[in-house]
Amino acid sequence: MTKANTLTLKPLGINTYKEAVVYMRKDCPVCRSEGFEAPARVKVIHKNKIILATLNTIESDLLTPHEASLSTFAWEQLSASIGDEIQVFHPDHLNSLDHIRGKIYGHELNKDEIREIIKDVVNGSLSDIHISAFLASTGDDRFSEQEIFYLTESMIEVGNRISWHKDLIVDKHCIGGLPGNRTTLIVVPIVAAFGLTIPKTSSRAITSPAGTADTMEVFAPVSLDLNAMRKVIEKENGCLVWGGSVNLSPADDILIRIERALILDSMGQLVASILSKKIAAGSSHVIIDVPIGPTVKVRTTASADELKNYLEAIGKTLGIEVKTVFTDGSQPVGRGIGPALEAKDVLAVLQGDINAPQSLRERSIALAGQVLEFSPNVRKGTGYAVAEKILSSGQAWQKFQAICHAQGGLFEPPIAKHMRTITSKKKGTILAIDNRYLSRVAKLAGAPQAKAAGIKLLTPIGTKVNFGDPLFEIHAETKGELHYAVNFLSMDHEIFDIGEFE
Amino acid sequence: MTKANTLTLKPLGINTYKEAVVYMRKDCPVCRSEGFEAPARVKVIHKNKIILATLNTIESDLLTPHEASLSTFAWEQLSASIGDEIQVFHPDHLNSLDHIRGKIYGHELNKDEIREIIKDVVNGSLSDIHISAFLASTGDDRFSEQEIFYLTESMIEVGNRISWHKDLIVDKHCIGGLPGNRTTLIVVPIVAAFGLTIPKTSSRAITSPAGTADTMEVFAPVSLDLNAMRKVIEKENGCLVWGGSVNLSPADDILIRIERALILDSMGQLVASILSKKIAAGSSHVIIDVPIGPTVKVRTTASADELKNYLEAIGKTLGIEVKTVFTDGSQPVGRGIGPALEAKDVLAVLQGDINAPQSLRERSIALAGQVLEFSPNVRKGTGYAVAEKILSSGQAWQKFQAICHAQGGLFEPPIAKHMRTITSKKKGTILAIDNRYLSRVAKLAGAPQAKAAGIKLLTPIGTKVNFGDPLFEIHAETKGELHYAVNFLSMDHEIFDIGEFE
Repeated sequence: MTKANTLTLKPLGINTYKEAVVYMRKDCPVCRSEGFEAPARVKVIHKNKIILATLNTIESDLLTPHEASLSTFAWEQLSASIGDEIQVFHPDHLNSLDHIRGKIYGHELNKDEIREIIKDVVNGSLSDIHISAFLASTGDDRFSEQEIFYLTESMIEVGNRISWHKDLIVDKHCIGGLPGNRTTLIVVPIVAAFGLTIPKTSSRAITSPAGTADTMEVFAPVSLDLNAMRKVIEKENGCLVWGGSVNLSPADDILIRIERALILDSMGQLVASILSKKIAAGSSHVIIDVPIGPTVKVRTTASADELKNYLEAIGKTLGIEVKTVFTDGSQPVGRGIGPALEAKDVLAVLQGDINAPQSLRERSIALAGQVLEFSPNVRKGTGYAVAEKILSSGQAWQKFQAICHAQGGLFEPPIAKHMRTITSKKKGTILAIDNRYLSRVAKLAGAPQAKAAGIKLLTPIGTKVNFGDPLFEIHAETKGELHYAVNFLSMDHEIFDIGEFE
Repeated sequence: MTKANTLTLKPLGINTYKEAVVYMRKDCPVCRSEGFEAPARVKVIHKNKIILATLNTIESDLLTPHEASLSTFAWEQLSASIGDEIQVFHPDHLNSLDHIRGKIYGHELNKDEIREIIKDVVNGSLSDIHISAFLASTGDDRFSEQEIFYLTESMIEVGNRISWHKDLIVDKHCIGGLPGNRTTLIVVPIVAAFGLTIPKTSSRAITSPAGTADTMEVFAPVSLDLNAMRKVIEKENGCLVWGGSVNLSPADDILIRIERALILDSMGQLVASILSKKIAAGSSHVIIDVPIGPTVKVRTTASADELKNYLEAIGKTLGIEVKTVFTDGSQPVGRGIGPALEAKDVLAVLQGDINAPQSLRERSIALAGQVLEFSPNVRKGTGYAVAEKILSSGQAWQKFQAICHAQGGLFEPPIAKHMRTITSKKKGTILAIDNRYLSRVAKLAGAPQAKAAGIKLLTPIGTKVNFGDPLFEIHAETKGELHYAVNFLSMDHEIFDIGEFE
């Protein structure tokens, strides 16, 4: 006898990112008998696994009435194969949704409630709609310090967690938003060369022309699993891997995606996001770089102070030492925008090139110095000098090469096939740069997918230019992408504010 | 020269309900040049129309790299045809999303801000994720009376609005949740027979075994457009049509769907939902039936009072008279559950059948009496008697038939091919009935799609039963559906609480 509500799986290859979707004919026996219509939430059973999914109905011959399909995410969650049978039913009651409603109505959530929400975020029981309501309900600082603490704990519980057989595991993290701020690729080798353990994981670009993981990938593979990452650390004290491949905070990956759709930065979520990843990576001492400026994430010292207090207090409760460092976030760091162009800035700093961007070098040494002061062997106030020496002596460059080799590298940064120099149409001093538009041009040129593509900025703020002087270069791997970026420039956008000085 | 970012439309027939989705190959030139990945929001341009849509990427040969597809909703919004070209770009900045974020952060929204949000809800610029955050941000009574007023106004603005050349246009509405409560089909003919104008629109079932529109459809067509509805009213004073086909509050249709996914009933949204539809229908005087009981929408007299205050005050500001009537919501009304079975209860009441369910008859007369008292010709306190006379004299039954004919009816309620009587396994008195499970069985039997399917309840609360006495009948149109419903009963669910009386 066949089981109830059974359909046969056919692949359609539809990627919805992390939303589980099941595709079924509107006139299939299951939709008809259960009264299912899009966008119902349904329970999908496959062998011994159960997920909740959103129903999209098919009104064409993509499927027969006895077939169903799944989005890529749902397909992976169920480890399904072509021709397998699934059963589809009405979903059970979701306790976590009760808790979210409770939060909407202003209740304080306890540990078990937050844990149940995070568990259901990760296993897909809560849809994007539910998660969005949860995040909105915690906005305006409606999450207490206690709740942020539970949130962080719960996010750690649902992911992998690394333990090291050492007491001092350091890390650094930057509250994003500042273009070209690739200090991580310089801080990690300095710290590792000194002898401290720094298991650094980074993200890829989401909306920017390059993330730290994208830039590192110019030099070496970054998609290492936990075991491979552990081996690199054991050999070289440090690593530079993509966080997505080690699954340290799967809840965070999902919550961040919804926050991005809402363009919402809730303080509680930001704190839990950072701390959960650091603690999951086994860190004991962490430096957090908080750039403050008009176009970055943290815009006022008041909100920087609030963030600092939460990070340090909740870090302490969770057993790690967090030190927050405020830095200048008023303009981009270095010259390159795009993976390979940023990689060249990093290379210049590591190799001691006299033309290396000083802003990148200075910031990296300062942050590395702060990290080094976690060591009992570095006196307070001397970290900067120790870091500077490791960098200028070439030890950091040696260590960087060793880390790349351990990760499966070291590659030469690629050079773009096509290049166009953009010149100034007037004489004057560069007063301001619209980083968002500059980033946009870099993306249109192909970054970060095309590693060599992007922008090389030639005139930072304060530069005096004459008519016809080069302002920046556009690099692209294909002629079409170069055209695309140049065409965008010809539209009505001023990237540079050039003052009319005599 | 071809336009930038152009793809050719191919139909796939994927229905996501009201979420605009664009399907594109992950490796198509547009995704590659713009860096688009699922689930990005993108701007889709087709001829002179622009919509925002969510990107789902295709990793199979459903599409070529130069093709794209759209969900049914997006396809309709753009009035697109097979082979048409679309252009896909990054979306512009959404002001309405700023307003939603403002509400999350606790700001009071002004008229223009709420108007912009509702406009973008209806045109699809705001995704389900955004709308969910908006609804969550207004929960816990965070919407002021002024904001609810603006919300109602904005919802009226974006839909159709009917005007009548009369001063007194009446209506009635029930705050759902009570099974079998089909008073509307009796109130409308009584009121219309008296001579008042009552342009009644109703909803179809969403999660229940029948909505008022589904039950009315047993007798006559209900999917009338505005013009057809107007003609029925002009001829017969009253109508009973499906609200979905006259597009009176398109914003409400979308908001309700997200509220349902969250199982959230925000007071502000409920008030705006009801009033916007009534005002759009041109009503001047409205009776609102608020059943109060443990398993219906309004559970306490305190929240009923709050709802009453909002409805009456905001209704007054918008120029209509609203009268709220509290009724008993402790148990189902009538015997039938499912379109045809409920229709038979209605028929029995209208035809004066001595076995007609008295609860349905009484409630209908009481509500009709309240509506009639809006007339200057009906003295306060005499409405009930007037309504009772119109019903018992057969005038209401005549008017009902006339309305059905005007709408394109009158049909005979169908009778199910398959029936099973469920009997009691013990002796005692019916103390309580689990309406949710009874509704579930009716749906498994095929209601509301299968019009004749459902439940006929034989033993209301208080009935004394012996072992083997019939409790209810299951009606189904197919053997499979009957089996399906009966199998569900054999599981571990007690629908009746039968007390052990001697």
